[in-house]
Amino acid sequence: MSDVLERLAEVLEERKSAQPDSSYVAKLYSKGLDSILKKIGEEATETVMAAKDGDADKIVYETADLWFHSMVLLAQQGLGPGDVLAELDRRFGLSGLDEKASRDAE
Amino acid sequence: MSDVLERLAEVLEERKSAQPDSSYVAKLYSKGLDSILKKIGEEATETVMAAKDGDADKIVYETADLWFHSMVLLAQQGLGPGDVLAELDRRFGLSGLDEKASRDAE
Amino acid sequence: MSDVLERLAEVLEERKSAQPDSSYVAKLYSKGLDSILKKIGEEATETVMAAKDGDADKIVYETADLWFHSMVLLAQQGLGPGDVLAELDRRFGLSGLDEKASRDAE
Amino acid sequence: MSDVLERLAEVLEERKSAQPDSSYVAKLYSKGLDSILKKIGEEATETVMAAKDGDADKIVYETADLWFHSMVLLAQQGLGPGDVLAELDRRFGLSGLDEKASRDAE
Repeated sequence: MSDVLERLAEVLEERKSAQPDSSYVAKLYSKGLDSILKKIGEEATETVMAAKDGDADKIVYETADLWFHSMVLLAQQGLGPGDVLAELDRRFGLSGLDEKASRDAE
Repeated sequence: MSDVLERLAEVLEERKSAQPDSSYVAKLYSKGLDSILKKIGEEATETVMAAKDGDADKIVYETADLWFHSMVLLAQQGLGPGDVLAELDRRFGLSGLDEKASRDAE
Repeated sequence: MSDVLERLAEVLEERKSAQPDSSYVAKLYSKGLDSILKKIGEEATETVMAAKDGDADKIVYETADLWFHSMVLLAQQGLGPGDVLAELDRRFGLSGLDEKASRDAE
Repeated sequence: MSDVLERLAEVLEERKSAQPDSSYVAKLYSKGLDSILKKIGEEATETVMAAKDGDADKIVYETADLWFHSMVLLAQQGLGPGDVLAELDRRFGLSGLDEKASRDAE
């Protein structure tokens, strides 16, 4: 499961050279940055609504939409999920936790 | 890098039993769902603004904030990043891609 | 100009009894609350993007969209712009300012 | 009630020359555009949450917050509520409706 974001990033990269009418993502790229950002605003709102409904399936579905459109933004800007994960890692010292976990396991 | 989300999910799980004033996340949990959702709305807006500025570092930083607060929502609801990644996998047939890659490599 | 919101509220009230396919607003009502709220999220994001572009015409256009969809929400909930204006009045003592202006004018 | 927006616009104009620490609005101006836009994103999210709660008082309160911060944006950009109301008037032919109402009343 852990490499889903990396593989999705590859798919998003490939779509950059696709015809606009060949896929949803190719069309989003061709419409430009504002269309991608509008989707991020929309999906954040839909995530909030799903959570207020307390509907677990919808929360997962809308969060997937939100992360997906964030990934399209990253790709369009020449960035990728690795940049975001590195930032989270830096903040929470997750690699550090991992090291500690490894030491504890020894 | 690929397990950052899983490790972050573990940290978020641990914070559920922490005192509200012991960490930012413990405080967010204690304030409840609306406080978490408000942050998702805020961070989505800040991601949009960073992208309009064309500032790569800020885009990464704000997307990390957005994903982080999505992860807090998932944790608060008894869900996790694996649920979202499974949904993305299901949509984009990423495991399928993986299988194909495995076959190509043989 | 000052009664535009009141007249718009009347139009929105009339549309409640219209066929869903007879107008944009009638269709929004028939789709229900979530569709209206999704539009509020969208239009807020578009207002933010217009402001980042520094485009005065777009700021006015998107703010009009945002206020309009807020008005649809109010109407759908049995509320109206008078409720919102009364709240703003209460906060900022605008009637008080008005009284003071009246006294000054005497 | 109908002139509340105009009077609020006057207050917002006056605050432009106030010291940053003298009022909430003066502080928002001094922090700059992004701080105002962030509030618009926040208040839109809070309006959505209030509506999902079906809480009329909160809907009115959060819509007032949303309109208020939209007004701060307009003021900061040298615009005002009259511009937005004129746009709504243009779209919905509200002056036209008014004329018709006048004729009907004769």
